[in-house]
Amino acid sequence: MSRIAYVNGRYLSFRDAKVHVEDRGYQFGDGVYEVCEVRGGRLINARRHLARLDRSLGELRIRAPMSTKALGVVLREVVARNRIGYGVVYLQVTRGVARRDHAFPAPEVKPSLVVTARALNRARNEALAANGIAVISMPDNRWGRVDIKTIGLLPNVLARQAAIEQGARDAWFVDRDGAVTEGASANAWIVTPAGKVVTRPADRAILRGITRTVLFEAVKAQGLAIEERAFTLEEAYGAREAFVTAATQIVLPVVRIDGRLIGNGKPGPVATALRRAFHDFAEAG
Amino acid sequence: MSRIAYVNGRYLSFRDAKVHVEDRGYQFGDGVYEVCEVRGGRLINARRHLARLDRSLGELRIRAPMSTKALGVVLREVVARNRIGYGVVYLQVTRGVARRDHAFPAPEVKPSLVVTARALNRARNEALAANGIAVISMPDNRWGRVDIKTIGLLPNVLARQAAIEQGARDAWFVDRDGAVTEGASANAWIVTPAGKVVTRPADRAILRGITRTVLFEAVKAQGLAIEERAFTLEEAYGAREAFVTAATQIVLPVVRIDGRLIGNGKPGPVATALRRAFHDFAEAG
Repeated sequence: MSRIAYVNGRYLSFRDAKVHVEDRGYQFGDGVYEVCEVRGGRLINARRHLARLDRSLGELRIRAPMSTKALGVVLREVVARNRIGYGVVYLQVTRGVARRDHAFPAPEVKPSLVVTARALNRARNEALAANGIAVISMPDNRWGRVDIKTIGLLPNVLARQAAIEQGARDAWFVDRDGAVTEGASANAWIVTPAGKVVTRPADRAILRGITRTVLFEAVKAQGLAIEERAFTLEEAYGAREAFVTAATQIVLPVVRIDGRLIGNGKPGPVATALRRAFHDFAEAG
Repeated sequence: MSRIAYVNGRYLSFRDAKVHVEDRGYQFGDGVYEVCEVRGGRLINARRHLARLDRSLGELRIRAPMSTKALGVVLREVVARNRIGYGVVYLQVTRGVARRDHAFPAPEVKPSLVVTARALNRARNEALAANGIAVISMPDNRWGRVDIKTIGLLPNVLARQAAIEQGARDAWFVDRDGAVTEGASANAWIVTPAGKVVTRPADRAILRGITRTVLFEAVKAQGLAIEERAFTLEEAYGAREAFVTAATQIVLPVVRIDGRLIGNGKPGPVATALRRAFHDFAEAG
């Protein structure tokens, strides 16, 4: 099936989906993005993703390319044209095309909008969750505003690559104080020996994940106590469970950090239950 | 005159100069760049720029798109096709086009190469140097490897924009210790009351500017003492002169920092002399 992408007002065959070399996304990383899960052909938590997009755009003072409602229509149209049942839809907005100059271009320059979608292999994702993943830690060397979901992901790229080369699947960033910030593309969580579910507050050092936010409700519904606070790498090593959350993976158990087994080295009951319960708390539309 | 750009093996009219939406430069900021001055139709310090490009690519393990010699040919061809006498040539290399995934793509994925050029207005640049510029300071919130010349320039974009909105032309980043790192797209220098020329060592907190490196020779030739060390914002406020260096601007006097006059508020003799002498030490080819 030939894939279709939406690029600045047109639905194009994927191979023709191109942007100008002076798009500020290409020359400056001057743009933001969202990735939304698709399940049963429906968008999961689209409203929240579009609200976060709005916030990202606002923080960078990039004009919205169209109304939130119209964006939702485009997202659904791309999902439909690509016949995605289970997968993801990806949306990217940049400050548009202008002669290269660091400063913002004239206000009349239109932001660029690109939307793509692709199917994911559900059996593979479930197998990943059933086995759990290994992560490595590394110093967080990213810029000071990772709370904005920008396309400037090179540190994340390098972290993920380092993880893979060390036989792990993802990397957890650690700040100067020894506290875990988040994964290269996921929020980080632990379950303490006392059974409390811990994740870092959504300060400027992490992205406020949509899956993270929705999971709070799932945790509460299970009658579990949440502590929203920073936790150190040392504390994570000694946790009963660890897991990550992201739109593409929902809840993924972490069974090894820096080569050390977490708990008994198998996905724990809390992470497993939360993964199962998640979609009861998500919006589908 | 319609401009010409080189894009992945082809010389295209500028309006058709496009890259795929899944170019990793567009989705991850996974790429590097160089900007080289053109003067009298010749490239200035091209050898050094290409050597730095090599280093940037090496640090990120991006394959060189072609040999350094072939790159030089492309740069000169783009300059010639655009009939640039005085201006800049811009070169960007990314890790290529691949299905979106943070980890590096398969080794056979070819890096992308884009080269553009444009004329600059020499009278305007000279007037800028004759008047000097104002800069503002702001906390350096960039990632930990700004010594690599990546296209992830969003913090620089925001800094430059803030400067302009405050009636200045550029921003100087200041680290946690109160020391100036560099400008948003230029290296920062001061001349102390004792007449010493000071610039920060090329650690990981600044980009090792080509103009900066070449200027060391010009400073020495003027019989001036250089101190390669960090200097604080406070020290800069009290400096006899301040200036910035960049390939597009060579030496540009700074006459105001955060609204405070530097020296007598006019371009100083050291900066002016260095600007005049610079091309005696540069390579043209």
